[in-house]
Amino acid sequence: MENHCGTSRIAGCSFSVHPMSDKFVDYIKAGLNEVDSSKVWMKTDDVTTTVRGRMEHVFEVTEAILLHIAKTGVHVAFQGTFSIGCPGDSSGDVHMDESEERLNKPQFKEIEQRIAAKFSLYPMGGGDYMDTIYRQIEAMKEKGVEVTPAHYSTRLDGDTRDIFTGLQDVFRETEASGSSHTVMTVTVSANSPSHKDDRP
Amino acid sequence: MENHCGTSRIAGCSFSVHPMSDKFVDYIKAGLNEVDSSKVWMKTDDVTTTVRGRMEHVFEVTEAILLHIAKTGVHVAFQGTFSIGCPGDSSGDVHMDESEERLNKPQFKEIEQRIAAKFSLYPMGGGDYMDTIYRQIEAMKEKGVEVTPAHYSTRLDGDTRDIFTGLQDVFRETEASGSSHTVMTVTVSANSPSHKDDRP
Ligand SMILES: [Ca+2]
Repeated sequence: MENHCGTSRIAGCSFSVHPMSDKFVDYIKAGLNEVDSSKVWMKTDDVTTTVRGRMEHVFEVTEAILLHIAKTGVHVAFQGTFSIGCPGDSSGDVHMDESEERLNKPQFKEIEQRIAAKFSLYPMGGGDYMDTIYRQIEAMKEKGVEVTPAHYSTRLDGDTRDIFTGLQDVFRETEASGSSHTVMTVTVSANSPSHKDDRP
Repeated sequence: MENHCGTSRIAGCSFSVHPMSDKFVDYIKAGLNEVDSSKVWMKTDDVTTTVRGRMEHVFEVTEAILLHIAKTGVHVAFQGTFSIGCPGDSSGDVHMDESEERLNKPQFKEIEQRIAAKFSLYPMGGGDYMDTIYRQIEAMKEKGVEVTPAHYSTRLDGDTRDIFTGLQDVFRETEASGSSHTVMTVTVSANSPSHKDDRP
């Protein structure tokens, strides 16, 4: 069942991105074209895309794909399940020797894109994570991210970079607190016609 | 954080459905129009829709919404997080006195719709669930659902009703095995241009 994930501290994300447009294929291809994914293992099928590698690159690549599609103004949804520490297979544990240096940050430094996100954290392997979560939530608020409780999740409204930085911090700190297997689901909506103030 | 879910054995699903079309709003509205959701609590915002109630109705309503959109032939993605037993709030524990009788089954009995799905099960509260999972996976295979391991998930290919019945069985049996808090994520793709044999 759940045994197709990494042995070491390789992180991964199984995600999909949905531009709500007749030209969804073009949006996805154009977005992928602008993203440098050379530091992660990446594979796409007809349901999801899987990226695996160092945690910082996994978060950066998923954020970059979302951002490059969203900047066109199309209504786009992103859904990702981030995972680390799932016991199981060993394939794909390449890319762990890559440097920390991010490849995409300079490219999307200038893009301001408000998003609405909902995330849930599932620490499957113990650890003292509740303090960590509350601390990271406070840190997000200080960056201007709006935090609201929601059913089965926590809602975040704000700039894409602040939210993805915050999500990565929560995820990293939860694992550092001793959770041997951590899963985090993230659902994002950008440019929704229902958003009140979608662009800054 | 995770405290906005039910007190009793109320089940719930936070989901979103994404028709990849310029007319996504019309598709969603038409789909919702055909679904009888009077036995569940349901609320939609700009990121997700939440349904809560008896497990069978939660599964039926989510399946019905997906099915009524997919039957139009539009490429549609569904992402849902099913949850039961999350300790927390009490609001929404209405609808638990509804009868078991399904409201939508007759309406979509005739719809044949192949889908590709990926699911992951997170039993947060113990229980002896591995045997249960393997048994339910075998039961799905006997119904003609194709089961393939995937990264961080298990892939299912087959008819929508068989897959949703199988998912509900896995979820229900996992909880029955003693997991006090069970979460299951499901990602579905229907009518993808990348599917090889999308219609039976
Ligand atoms: Ca189809």
